[in-house]
Amino acid sequence: MKGSTEGKTITCKAAVAWEPHKLSIEDVEVAPPKANEVRIKITHTALCHTDLLTLSGKDAEGKFPCILGHEGAGIVESVGEGVTEVKSGDHVIPCYQAECRECKFCKSGKTNLCGKVRAATGQGVMLLDGKPRFSAKGKPIYHYMGTSTFSQYTVVHDVSVAKINPKAPLDKVCLFGCGVTTGRGAVLNTAKVEPGSTVAIFGLGTVGLAACEAAKKAAGAKRVIGVDIQPAKYPLAQKFGATEFVNPKDHEKPIQQVLVDMTDGGVDYSFECVGKVELMRAALEACIKGWGTSVIVGVAESGAEVSTRPFMLITGRTWKGTAFGGYKSRTDVPKLIEQYLNGEIRIEEYITHRLSLPEINEAVELMKRVECLRCVISME
Amino acid sequence: MKGSTEGKTITCKAAVAWEPHKLSIEDVEVAPPKANEVRIKITHTALCHTDLLTLSGKDAEGKFPCILGHEGAGIVESVGEGVTEVKSGDHVIPCYQAECRECKFCKSGKTNLCGKVRAATGQGVMLLDGKPRFSAKGKPIYHYMGTSTFSQYTVVHDVSVAKINPKAPLDKVCLFGCGVTTGRGAVLNTAKVEPGSTVAIFGLGTVGLAACEAAKKAAGAKRVIGVDIQPAKYPLAQKFGATEFVNPKDHEKPIQQVLVDMTDGGVDYSFECVGKVELMRAALEACIKGWGTSVIVGVAESGAEVSTRPFMLITGRTWKGTAFGGYKSRTDVPKLIEQYLNGEIRIEEYITHRLSLPEINEAVELMKRVECLRCVISME
Ligand SMILES: [Zn+2]
Ligand SMILES: [Zn+2]
Ligand SMILES: [Zn+2]
Ligand SMILES: [Zn+2]
Repeated sequence: MKGSTEGKTITCKAAVAWEPHKLSIEDVEVAPPKANEVRIKITHTALCHTDLLTLSGKDAEGKFPCILGHEGAGIVESVGEGVTEVKSGDHVIPCYQAECRECKFCKSGKTNLCGKVRAATGQGVMLLDGKPRFSAKGKPIYHYMGTSTFSQYTVVHDVSVAKINPKAPLDKVCLFGCGVTTGRGAVLNTAKVEPGSTVAIFGLGTVGLAACEAAKKAAGAKRVIGVDIQPAKYPLAQKFGATEFVNPKDHEKPIQQVLVDMTDGGVDYSFECVGKVELMRAALEACIKGWGTSVIVGVAESGAEVSTRPFMLITGRTWKGTAFGGYKSRTDVPKLIEQYLNGEIRIEEYITHRLSLPEINEAVELMKRVECLRCVISME
Repeated sequence: MKGSTEGKTITCKAAVAWEPHKLSIEDVEVAPPKANEVRIKITHTALCHTDLLTLSGKDAEGKFPCILGHEGAGIVESVGEGVTEVKSGDHVIPCYQAECRECKFCKSGKTNLCGKVRAATGQGVMLLDGKPRFSAKGKPIYHYMGTSTFSQYTVVHDVSVAKINPKAPLDKVCLFGCGVTTGRGAVLNTAKVEPGSTVAIFGLGTVGLAACEAAKKAAGAKRVIGVDIQPAKYPLAQKFGATEFVNPKDHEKPIQQVLVDMTDGGVDYSFECVGKVELMRAALEACIKGWGTSVIVGVAESGAEVSTRPFMLITGRTWKGTAFGGYKSRTDVPKLIEQYLNGEIRIEEYITHRLSLPEINEAVELMKRVECLRCVISME
């Protein structure tokens, strides 16, 4: 059975960023998927701070006009030639991190950073022909992170599509497209936190909360120290597994020194989930000599650089980073969603707001408020 | 049998750095070892670039007047109360990295960075009473790195003394006190280079050559790329296992880009064995995304900082450092010396010059020349 839209351009609503700072709801044309491409009807999308960073114009790779969004869920509308793993009607998460299973990165067994479509998605186009599948007002509109979930329909590479259990509620599991997956994986895959560890989590937004949950409940850390300048975030973080809190504003000493003093020399693991280079440095320097490991999870502004004294590394600290939490998208996202369905991973608590597509600019404003973790947009 | 000097202050010759830039041969008084201290008759010492860094006044921890030197070998003259593992007559290497086997670092199983005497040795004094055991012209003279091998007699903490096979030639195995051990361990312990890897070694001095040998012969790396601005160093590096060379001066592009282009995306492991922060950055950025690991081995000037874009870490590179190559001094140095005696580790090739203690200022000058790797000083 073929859908009535198959092979045809679909005109639908999308939030277009013609230039930095503003999203406009427009009628966009979404071309049919070409070879190894999948067209997805997005049912829900959340916003992530990386969308806001790009919208602000401070993302080195941001290319305008574009359709943002990378935390979505939906249903396959149609597939292009050569697509074998999904078909019309499948429930899916479009993932900004692809997994081709064939490139040297996928085959290395050491990383989730597939190299197959990265050059194209970084340019906002499709690999096959170097062009976008979106247009509006007669102009081409670029893709974003290979996902562009702020559109009722999007076209993505087949290697970026995770097929999930159709029982999973799409209005919730869209969060696995970025934040929850990233925070959890930073702890479990990148740092490999061990039972009994002392951990510091910088930033208690969605990513930081997911890291708290993973550190305390999945990895068995003993102390999980939440670091945030907003005490309003502490009660929920406690529910997610944080055992104590530090507000850098309460101290005259640098936060790294506060943490070193609290932990007899420093934490075993730290996670920077904010995207500020000063905090990345503090997170590293808060680690104990000999084995402390700091993982950069947040995305910094274009041009910002991290620094430290080399002595910090010479004396046994390790500095790492994570993208998509080290999870392989097509292989692992379906498993994470099973874990959610089994009650092992929380999702509901992150969803503090719900709006519809025409209200997306309100959602952007909401994301800047302390009480908003995730605003899920219904695309219908 | 007790030596005739036991329990008495010994007056001997030493190279004293009264202030930065100059070593003076002086008569120094060396007090008897107190509890958990060992007095060693140093027979030979080499110079290392870290001695020169401190002598230049650019080491944040450098405290004057002091007796430098940390690549020595000798024979125990006498021991203080409570010393059980060595006795008068034992052949030993005084190690700047202690190993107490009791502190949380020693017991962690994760690091060689013993914490027991570090605070004292960093201050140039002994742990027991916070004072040095050296004096000259009526003034106290500070210890250096807990070793001070530029003296005919030195006093060190018992946890810093590696007892070695008396068959090992002291005029050669003194090199295990720093450079050879550090370069080898950076590869085998800190990075854990795997067979078939592609490796870049920045700086082909003693540490870099030891890293080449470890990477190619012990770890089984496939490509070992030596990076140095002195082509005169390439022939010996080839003997030690380097398979190809890059001279940054031959290229307009940054060296990290040259290496990325040579290796289809970057090297698996890189080692900075020079101590320049720009090269530390280049070494990290020369690594492949997904799993590339860069190890800082060289010691930078006081106040210098390393920087990079956080994107380099987010995309899967790891930045580490090593001190004493991750080797536990008392446990591992005797084993390394056995490996040398069995022909598994080269030493002779590093010793390009030999001088006697009164000529030590010549040795300092020699160390600045490309043809000098190690100058071994006979202390007799
Ligand atoms: Zn995101
Ligand atoms: Zn791939
Ligand atoms: Zn110890
Ligand atoms: Zn040294």
